[in-house]
Amino acid sequence: MTVTVIGLGPMGQALAGALLKAGHDVTVWNRTESKAAELLSRGAQWAPNPADAVAASDVTLVNVVDHDAVDAVAAAAGDLAGRVLVGLSSDTPERARSTAKLVADAGGRYLDGAIMTPTEVMGTPDASVLYAGPQDLFDSHRGLFDVLGQVTWLGEDLGRAAAYDMALLDVFWTATGGFLHAVEIARAQGITPGQLLRHALGIAAILPPIFTEITERVEADRHDEASASVSSAAASLSHLIATSESSGVDAGALKAMKRYADAAVVAGHGDAEISRLGVAMRR
Amino acid sequence: MTVTVIGLGPMGQALAGALLKAGHDVTVWNRTESKAAELLSRGAQWAPNPADAVAASDVTLVNVVDHDAVDAVAAAAGDLAGRVLVGLSSDTPERARSTAKLVADAGGRYLDGAIMTPTEVMGTPDASVLYAGPQDLFDSHRGLFDVLGQVTWLGEDLGRAAAYDMALLDVFWTATGGFLHAVEIARAQGITPGQLLRHALGIAAILPPIFTEITERVEADRHDEASASVSSAAASLSHLIATSESSGVDAGALKAMKRYADAAVVAGHGDAEISRLGVAMRR
Repeated sequence: MTVTVIGLGPMGQALAGALLKAGHDVTVWNRTESKAAELLSRGAQWAPNPADAVAASDVTLVNVVDHDAVDAVAAAAGDLAGRVLVGLSSDTPERARSTAKLVADAGGRYLDGAIMTPTEVMGTPDASVLYAGPQDLFDSHRGLFDVLGQVTWLGEDLGRAAAYDMALLDVFWTATGGFLHAVEIARAQGITPGQLLRHALGIAAILPPIFTEITERVEADRHDEASASVSSAAASLSHLIATSESSGVDAGALKAMKRYADAAVVAGHGDAEISRLGVAMRR
Repeated sequence: MTVTVIGLGPMGQALAGALLKAGHDVTVWNRTESKAAELLSRGAQWAPNPADAVAASDVTLVNVVDHDAVDAVAAAAGDLAGRVLVGLSSDTPERARSTAKLVADAGGRYLDGAIMTPTEVMGTPDASVLYAGPQDLFDSHRGLFDVLGQVTWLGEDLGRAAAYDMALLDVFWTATGGFLHAVEIARAQGITPGQLLRHALGIAAILPPIFTEITERVEADRHDEASASVSSAAASLSHLIATSESSGVDAGALKAMKRYADAAVVAGHGDAEISRLGVAMRR
């Protein structure tokens, strides 16, 4: 199968590299040509512009900064009759759907994908990519997607891969931001990042069972017999905010969480399990 | 050794239960006597008030809601000459130090501890408790602490166990709150908590190496050659905030994180690794 890869940041290079390694004919285009050098030395073809790039192959993978950039590539490609675009850029579900419409209006077909994986493992069984869009289109390109890593098809709603992407990035950024914040509090208290890490890894280790318990409770809408109550969360967050501020570290994210806990207490759910806090996040 | 446990919430009951099981003479007191029933049936002695409770034993473990409550117990106990109090309540480093002073003023000695462990594993090798305070006092009670679980002594600064506690609760609450938030976004997008969980566990699995890389980078103050850049974080958070708000879910915690990313970009660190973001959290 002939494949074009547009966008040669670290992930785009990894995508094109994995496809070359699997023996595909790969054409590439990137705004800055120099980023293609290594791929060209490995047998990739250079296209001088997005239109030639898309015209060169049956299917084009687009891995650019966001869907404004995907749309710009699609617009520059012009007529997309008989062409398949696979968007692998991270953006909102709404933007994934609007790109699909723009591609359809130009005569092409569109699948949306979300890469769940760091660059280093792309093209290995440890990589994971989620796909959404027309099932026949997904099925006919399945062999190509298998080259990249584990494949999950989420259904025909073109916003669904982006919806998973957003929810999972939420988990990623809040946890990562929380650790960075904890490092700052620790530093202000004379604890080095390395001293904190050993214990923070212990916290990371208990997250999977906690996520699992929260999931079971939210699905069953059962928040009684609390092991970690909303009111204990509110007390704990109040100590944490005080410590953060007296350490000279902004407490914005903790204050948001405290507002949810306080609202749940006021609504009479202080004795409920913290799994009840999601409700307080709804506007 | 004779031991008193004051505060018989789930964790206090677990502490007293572990000490009884190890053959210690255990005296208990709690504001609500009924919570002592099971422990009394297992051989614990009931004390009618905090003063008698503290007088009954060489050492008293206090596990109440916060340090205002610890201080109230210490005040009710009166003269603490020859007595040792071990505070196992969660609060700020400042409050741990002020409780230590209050106990010293009443003639007693104080160690501060932070329980890093859920109730269920208390008294097993999976439990972990951090201690801070005078080393001779820690050493002479080490055998008692060994009964409760893994023991870590953090030094003589009486605020140090609480400082670790706060930093680790920061990791815990932000990650847990982030998962609850992701569940709400997912739900609004037609994804069930169970469907999200499988992939969220994949995110949880990559947190230990990410925490480790952040730690190494912060300790070396090296944030170049980014695999996840500050500007990519800013873009990602901007998509996330839009998705959260269009899903009817408050985006307060994400907006705090976005402010740090924007500030780091403005300061010229857009190409730096996200490990650089901690600096932007400092006031």
